[in-house]
Amino acid sequence: MIDVPLPDPRAHADALARLDGLVKPVGALGRLEELAAWLSAAHGTVPPRPLENVRVVVFAGDHGVSATSAYPREITAAMVRVFLAGKSGVNVLARQVGAQVRVLDIAVDDDLADVPAEVREHKIRRGSGSIDVEDALAPGEAARAFEAGRAVADAEIASGADLLIPGDMGIGNTAVAAALVAAVLGLPADDVVGTGTGLDEAGRARKVEVVAKALARPRGSGPFELLTALGSACAAATAGFLVQGAVRGVPVLLDGVFSGAAALVAREIAPDAVRWWLAGHRSTEPSQAFALKALGLSPVLDLGLRLGEGSGAVQAVPTLRAAQAIIAEMGLLADLA
Amino acid sequence: MIDVPLPDPRAHADALARLDGLVKPVGALGRLEELAAWLSAAHGTVPPRPLENVRVVVFAGDHGVSATSAYPREITAAMVRVFLAGKSGVNVLARQVGAQVRVLDIAVDDDLADVPAEVREHKIRRGSGSIDVEDALAPGEAARAFEAGRAVADAEIASGADLLIPGDMGIGNTAVAAALVAAVLGLPADDVVGTGTGLDEAGRARKVEVVAKALARPRGSGPFELLTALGSACAAATAGFLVQGAVRGVPVLLDGVFSGAAALVAREIAPDAVRWWLAGHRSTEPSQAFALKALGLSPVLDLGLRLGEGSGAVQAVPTLRAAQAIIAEMGLLADLA
Repeated sequence: MIDVPLPDPRAHADALARLDGLVKPVGALGRLEELAAWLSAAHGTVPPRPLENVRVVVFAGDHGVSATSAYPREITAAMVRVFLAGKSGVNVLARQVGAQVRVLDIAVDDDLADVPAEVREHKIRRGSGSIDVEDALAPGEAARAFEAGRAVADAEIASGADLLIPGDMGIGNTAVAAALVAAVLGLPADDVVGTGTGLDEAGRARKVEVVAKALARPRGSGPFELLTALGSACAAATAGFLVQGAVRGVPVLLDGVFSGAAALVAREIAPDAVRWWLAGHRSTEPSQAFALKALGLSPVLDLGLRLGEGSGAVQAVPTLRAAQAIIAEMGLLADLA
Repeated sequence: MIDVPLPDPRAHADALARLDGLVKPVGALGRLEELAAWLSAAHGTVPPRPLENVRVVVFAGDHGVSATSAYPREITAAMVRVFLAGKSGVNVLARQVGAQVRVLDIAVDDDLADVPAEVREHKIRRGSGSIDVEDALAPGEAARAFEAGRAVADAEIASGADLLIPGDMGIGNTAVAAALVAAVLGLPADDVVGTGTGLDEAGRARKVEVVAKALARPRGSGPFELLTALGSACAAATAGFLVQGAVRGVPVLLDGVFSGAAALVAREIAPDAVRWWLAGHRSTEPSQAFALKALGLSPVLDLGLRLGEGSGAVQAVPTLRAAQAIIAEMGLLADLA
């Protein structure tokens, strides 16, 4: 168990009182008011500080179950180069909100010798195991990847990050996410498996079979055993990143199904960490809905996205900033003529 | 009937083709892709231009049915001063997205002699009539207010606006919106009346009664007759503003229930105008849902807002900009290594 500080309940109460006194009907700004109070509690002050240093970290890696995808696994390595060129979806969307994007090769099944060494500094292995027939990770790798994710969060925070967004890139990762969610929540494969990057019904049926086989394999009972058997190096690294944001008291905006699944496992390691997490958007993947419900999180946006990369979460940044702005800048009813 | 140009179907088709070739699974950016194609059609070019000059115009006025509100009608005039001081919800939220806000006294029940003259240049009257017992407007006023709204849109476009957002401020305006929606769609008062700025059940029951009485009064059959009997000067001005955006081929982002109701009436005046409108957000008012469904529009955001002022629509601006950015800036699958 990793201890996590708690957001400030007094700042939360003060924020609610202030919101009720703004020049608007009580509650008329809906979700913005809830987010403003949440952010006040996170910062321990009313109004909370503006979010000026948003960082997306994309954990890239291959998953042995890539045969469940509509795309070949070579795409993962190619996409790392696209991130570095600033041409991916999340690169473009992050620029819109002034967020920085960092991509890390955690387990890409390619040497990526041509990319800058710092991209590979936390590489755990080349591809994670195919969870339907073998463990995803060798003994010790889940803990190493988890610690890598924590170190990455620490580095971002040390350089000023005030909002962390986990991104994911890896062919096969929705199958892994579905398996993790099913295992934590005791759901059958058919409930959690979606169409990922665009499978047809036959493709989805094969994916259900793969996930069902994975769930039927023997595994240990703790969160690291789960990451070892059914996860991937990226899932473990993402879990560490999410937990460390919470440990350091820095808000984290979850993206889609992959970070939702990682969050579900991370909560078993640090139960209070969820207090520091928000859900950026509703993914089209069914396992994300199960994960968020179990975590008690409700997505800010619902735009029918299924890209991953952190692309949904970055789009929720303007809403968080709007929440900060209303409580910081709106006039007071008491000042009305 | 007012003629409206049509968005460019060729640019729409070209946009869809380009979106399918971006470095992402087909369709993975969901609503953003739909909006990118829509904006391409509106601009007649792929990629569409960035939205750099967003203008919110708040039409302020009193409605005779202000007794249906949880707030006294004096609030409307006081709020005009808040808008001018830059302290309202929409002022704050517009600053976040770099949008300008202009407030116009269309029918505030106050002389507002202390505010700059240009705020009053389109004033139609002091308060609109109480629709449960009298017509909202005198003969000719609906047309005058409609033309005022068109002139305002023209002025904004002449000074460079590339996206128009109608805002509303007026105690009692959700009752008027409900009456208009019920009249156009043939719905009973009880289906369309909501809790507005925060009524309890007894307050809502009184409001249902007022709207039912209004709907039972005799009225003519055209859109201007509707605005005269059940509308308000603000509703007519907003309708003109929405229509003129379309006439000039400038996209309009509808806000909540008031602009939704005005849009429903405006469509009877300019049936193709809806091609230039998007719905910014889902209001908590039931009549907005009916209006948007009838217009075939689906809101971009759903944040539980019920403030009006244009506050919901301005928050959808980042999503529109994100849509423009992805089609303009993302790399192509064909360029993958």
